[in-house]
Amino acid sequence: MKTIAIVISARASYSRIRSALIHLSHASGVNLRIVIVASGSSNRFGNLEDFIKRDGLEIAWKIDSQLDTSHKASMAKTVGLTLLGLTDYLMNLQIDGVVVIADRHETIAASISGSFLGIKTFHIQGGERTGNIDDKVRYANSHLSDYHFVSNQKALERLIDCGIDPTKIFVTGCPSLDSVPVNKFDFEKIPSFTGIGLSSKEVFIGEYLVVIQHPETTSNLKSASQISPTIDAIDAVGIPALWIWPNSDLGGDEIVGEIRKAREHGQLKGVHFERSVEPEIFLRILDGAACVIGNSSVALRECSLIGTPAVNIGGRQRDRDHGSNVLSVQYDSDEIREAIKKQMSHGRFAPEFIYGSGESGKLISRLIQEIA
Amino acid sequence: MKTIAIVISARASYSRIRSALIHLSHASGVNLRIVIVASGSSNRFGNLEDFIKRDGLEIAWKIDSQLDTSHKASMAKTVGLTLLGLTDYLMNLQIDGVVVIADRHETIAASISGSFLGIKTFHIQGGERTGNIDDKVRYANSHLSDYHFVSNQKALERLIDCGIDPTKIFVTGCPSLDSVPVNKFDFEKIPSFTGIGLSSKEVFIGEYLVVIQHPETTSNLKSASQISPTIDAIDAVGIPALWIWPNSDLGGDEIVGEIRKAREHGQLKGVHFERSVEPEIFLRILDGAACVIGNSSVALRECSLIGTPAVNIGGRQRDRDHGSNVLSVQYDSDEIREAIKKQMSHGRFAPEFIYGSGESGKLISRLIQEIA
Amino acid sequence: MKTIAIVISARASYSRIRSALIHLSHASGVNLRIVIVASGSSNRFGNLEDFIKRDGLEIAWKIDSQLDTSHKASMAKTVGLTLLGLTDYLMNLQIDGVVVIADRHETIAASISGSFLGIKTFHIQGGERTGNIDDKVRYANSHLSDYHFVSNQKALERLIDCGIDPTKIFVTGCPSLDSVPVNKFDFEKIPSFTGIGLSSKEVFIGEYLVVIQHPETTSNLKSASQISPTIDAIDAVGIPALWIWPNSDLGGDEIVGEIRKAREHGQLKGVHFERSVEPEIFLRILDGAACVIGNSSVALRECSLIGTPAVNIGGRQRDRDHGSNVLSVQYDSDEIREAIKKQMSHGRFAPEFIYGSGESGKLISRLIQEIA
Amino acid sequence: MKTIAIVISARASYSRIRSALIHLSHASGVNLRIVIVASGSSNRFGNLEDFIKRDGLEIAWKIDSQLDTSHKASMAKTVGLTLLGLTDYLMNLQIDGVVVIADRHETIAASISGSFLGIKTFHIQGGERTGNIDDKVRYANSHLSDYHFVSNQKALERLIDCGIDPTKIFVTGCPSLDSVPVNKFDFEKIPSFTGIGLSSKEVFIGEYLVVIQHPETTSNLKSASQISPTIDAIDAVGIPALWIWPNSDLGGDEIVGEIRKAREHGQLKGVHFERSVEPEIFLRILDGAACVIGNSSVALRECSLIGTPAVNIGGRQRDRDHGSNVLSVQYDSDEIREAIKKQMSHGRFAPEFIYGSGESGKLISRLIQEIA
Repeated sequence: MKTIAIVISARASYSRIRSALIHLSHASGVNLRIVIVASGSSNRFGNLEDFIKRDGLEIAWKIDSQLDTSHKASMAKTVGLTLLGLTDYLMNLQIDGVVVIADRHETIAASISGSFLGIKTFHIQGGERTGNIDDKVRYANSHLSDYHFVSNQKALERLIDCGIDPTKIFVTGCPSLDSVPVNKFDFEKIPSFTGIGLSSKEVFIGEYLVVIQHPETTSNLKSASQISPTIDAIDAVGIPALWIWPNSDLGGDEIVGEIRKAREHGQLKGVHFERSVEPEIFLRILDGAACVIGNSSVALRECSLIGTPAVNIGGRQRDRDHGSNVLSVQYDSDEIREAIKKQMSHGRFAPEFIYGSGESGKLISRLIQEIA
Repeated sequence: MKTIAIVISARASYSRIRSALIHLSHASGVNLRIVIVASGSSNRFGNLEDFIKRDGLEIAWKIDSQLDTSHKASMAKTVGLTLLGLTDYLMNLQIDGVVVIADRHETIAASISGSFLGIKTFHIQGGERTGNIDDKVRYANSHLSDYHFVSNQKALERLIDCGIDPTKIFVTGCPSLDSVPVNKFDFEKIPSFTGIGLSSKEVFIGEYLVVIQHPETTSNLKSASQISPTIDAIDAVGIPALWIWPNSDLGGDEIVGEIRKAREHGQLKGVHFERSVEPEIFLRILDGAACVIGNSSVALRECSLIGTPAVNIGGRQRDRDHGSNVLSVQYDSDEIREAIKKQMSHGRFAPEFIYGSGESGKLISRLIQEIA
Repeated sequence: MKTIAIVISARASYSRIRSALIHLSHASGVNLRIVIVASGSSNRFGNLEDFIKRDGLEIAWKIDSQLDTSHKASMAKTVGLTLLGLTDYLMNLQIDGVVVIADRHETIAASISGSFLGIKTFHIQGGERTGNIDDKVRYANSHLSDYHFVSNQKALERLIDCGIDPTKIFVTGCPSLDSVPVNKFDFEKIPSFTGIGLSSKEVFIGEYLVVIQHPETTSNLKSASQISPTIDAIDAVGIPALWIWPNSDLGGDEIVGEIRKAREHGQLKGVHFERSVEPEIFLRILDGAACVIGNSSVALRECSLIGTPAVNIGGRQRDRDHGSNVLSVQYDSDEIREAIKKQMSHGRFAPEFIYGSGESGKLISRLIQEIA
Repeated sequence: MKTIAIVISARASYSRIRSALIHLSHASGVNLRIVIVASGSSNRFGNLEDFIKRDGLEIAWKIDSQLDTSHKASMAKTVGLTLLGLTDYLMNLQIDGVVVIADRHETIAASISGSFLGIKTFHIQGGERTGNIDDKVRYANSHLSDYHFVSNQKALERLIDCGIDPTKIFVTGCPSLDSVPVNKFDFEKIPSFTGIGLSSKEVFIGEYLVVIQHPETTSNLKSASQISPTIDAIDAVGIPALWIWPNSDLGGDEIVGEIRKAREHGQLKGVHFERSVEPEIFLRILDGAACVIGNSSVALRECSLIGTPAVNIGGRQRDRDHGSNVLSVQYDSDEIREAIKKQMSHGRFAPEFIYGSGESGKLISRLIQEIA
């Protein structure tokens, strides 16, 4: 019997690993221990706990380690607190393996804790490139970890170039894409949301946009100035939109403030705002969207398989591998508006298999059982 | 005026950067801020503070972050505490650049803190290979850092392979070798030490050995069993030796315990034990030594330039570049004894320039002033 | 020259010590070191930093230690983080005395850090009673501290009963009341605020209320249910009001949520909402108010000297000494409404000297210089 | 079913609560959760874990939170780390009650964590007086806790004077004395110890002394100077002695250093040194001792019931209630020597019931079940 801990620090990270967890939870030789930390343990950033429970999975441990995000020191200290708490848990539970997901800043706490305690450490999504602080964390995670489940051949090659032992790298595809094929747009299956602005039903009834834009922490541009062009462009295009609030990275609060201010000045009247959306529902929404706008990786990853047109703003995803569905633009209101129009007139793209094809959760689950 | 913080976590790390610090301290455009953390702030592991002050340098800040080393969680939690304390300091002082030294486990706190706060982060000694947990930390540090001062061409190439921007990597050599040429063996200049065992003078009067062996944290062999063969071999060879106590890594306490036990059983009568030795004095001692035994990197680095024969035990330095002065053996008393004899009968080797040639502190100081 | 550190964790705490700080900052033998921590270091809870700077005082150090308040563990962990950071600061700066203010949960970090490091620790506002978790913290602070500056004779007697050395307790009155006499209501001196709702000028033009209600953390009633009766009562009374958002204690977020919801449902149209108000301005506003409603201590302390009628809701101030200006009620909309009407029809009360008479900052400053 | 957490931070604390734990572990309605923290989790300070397991009790959780004790900041930071770790545990386990033991510096982490999370907090040994930093912590613990199990009527009265609710204070006696009556001196039942110096058997064969002296952290005298007079006096008296190493408080390391130095200079030849002794065995040894010397509370507490003569050195126990068996002296070698002689010539005292009479563990166990 092997005890495997999965450290999840945000809702988006959960959907990156979800299908693998469901497989692991049914494996007879595995005690699955889901540990939620940092922004994942805080209601302010979408209720991760409920999403996990709705999938029939149990949360084994919760580490309240998210600092108030208006602090400049928030990211570094959240890592410190997560590291302290995680180390207690991993030691006391006699864990055989730790799974570290992708590249959010606080994930480095999991790879340090696992490797410094001498526990087998598995990293998901190594070898990709995005072009910001996530790159730093993702590569640091790869070096600290022992085994690597990567999305594609290109990622594998990058890790080998880094001097990582090739016998410990496995091309599995990314589990986040496992649920793409089965979650098509279906108006009946999209629930009413409770956020503010236009009602969500009013959004989905016809042609609609999806906006999701996080702070670009390495940009010289202030977070507030990063979001204004998008606000103006969405208003100018004039099509209903679902807008997901930004994450808890430094600058997230300023973006929220800017959006609130815009609303008080009468802008964004055709928008429904939501903190977060259940992953499967979100895939259905992406499938039905006329265009996805912002700087979320879903536009490059999930949407490459779905075929939804996307407008990628600024440098947050600069170096990430992507399909022909993505059109990249600067923080410029006119550019964004024109790109949305161009993408909408093109319409749906053909699916591309850049990040896996739908079986990766099963494969990762098997490999972990084998190795741990 | 640029404010540059240097984070030092152990005496050995200080000697890796010392010559660069002395140059920086004289630079007119630089506020140098030496921050000592973790085992560097604890008297239990050699008085780092005094070594620094004796060089005319000032300690700007001290973070007491070393956990009791008998804990299994000590390494991970020491990183957590260091990270929390360092983040406060770097934020409050408005630091322009942070210098991260090499690969000790707690150095990752400095590279996380610097990079997550958006401060320019400089890493020394990236791109080398040693074959244990230090590798993980060293490469993670490289990925988290912005600028890289490396020892040689081979290290540069490894970092480029990792995808690190080649314009930000500089082959400077390692400052730890800057003081090699000027510190020749001279009996008159070696002070009397205060440690236990044989008097130090009795050691240096004739032919002598130097032993310095730290716990190999990734070995399956218990720390206690790692040291026994060395104890037996040193006794068997029967030549006076200077023995430096191990560092604070997990297992260090067990090694200390084993040595104490051996002494109580009448072994190691020809040995003088010392917590640590001032770097310049230590170079003189290495220069005069008949053979250096253990698993310290000095045997591979400094001694490659000095030419002192070395016996390297176990896997702690497995993949580190080294010169022809090094003979590697297993944790086996007979093997160690034979290797010492063989090396002693060979005598001094010709100097090799694998880690720089003596000007690297000056070069690093100039580059930091230019870039920060 | 004595170095004195003052640890401030919230805007309200600052006004408790402000006049003493201004005197200390002019004292020739004192290096004053203002350290802001916890919610005081976070913009989310009113900009403490600006308030301090506006008084011509300098912030020496800032410890970002406020956890996200949606965590249940937020209070305990914020104490832990503050304690770690403060200990680094107090040790490095060679502090001669630490001043601990009153009873907010995170203040215990200051009294632990000071006393465990053997620094003379001064506590302000010991010996009072309020009847909730603040009592626990206030008394713990008294026992951990060495010297005590208390508001009145009754507080002195309570500390003596606790076994505290009577020669170390000084009845100084509370500095927070020092600025009461000089800050009368004057419409011209009240700036326009930038918060939401009714404009602040519309509030102050005629008769107005002031509302300030924090979560009562020891109540069985949910925070959301604690605030609804107040919302209803303020609407029912129908007089313009200035409403200060709640503090960062557990439950503060729920209260904010409830108020936002009420506003979206068309309630509280006659209210101006403000995060926080500069202390001196706030005194002017209290002086002009027809009635102060909620559970802030200003209603019992400052307003006892001003004479402003107050309606005190729930148990948060249960055991606090107060004057005849205070009428206490339950969390009941009708009760609150009737109490407001009754207090308004009574009008201004005569000043009572329960918490000092206006010279306490000067006295405390002298005592600290004498003792430290 | 109630889940009760007991936080134990040192071997000495364990023996203060042991008999209550054994009763609680047999109670059908109780899930007992023993949590070991701080020096209790470190092998350096006596193997607490083994003592607990030998009693058939299980350790539920371990928090490695002891900092290296050579740091000046060690005490404050150990509290910070313990508080962070304990908060995670108490929250995740849904604890109904927390038991806080006595007054060691790190116990304040337990009372903060329990009270700030709103868990019923039980404190043992409140209301006593000893006259040093322990007093501060003990009283702070009392104020932070909800229920109080005290040793005697005098302690009860002191807590009532502090304003603590009399209905929540119970005079139970101290569980540490429960095992006094059944553990008489019996040479056959005292095992051979493994410490250094004279063999333990050589000590117990005839008349012997017991020495146990911790650093007095509030004394102006350096720790090293505190211990020298004792060393000299023990040598002068010339009777075999069992000497227990000091605890991990600040200064403990210096005392250890002084003792080691004395031994290297040929002193203390008639002494057996031991890190710690199993509580029941220790009672047998105290029962047989001619005199107990130092500043441990066992001399005042357990020995008042046993009747063993004691010489209490310095101010560490200054204000603690004690029986006629105790003779107090200064840090003066002559005074100590004379006092030992005087006490030895008096011989055994009559038992006094100052800290309970042997049933207190049972009573505490019942009360906790009733209240939690």
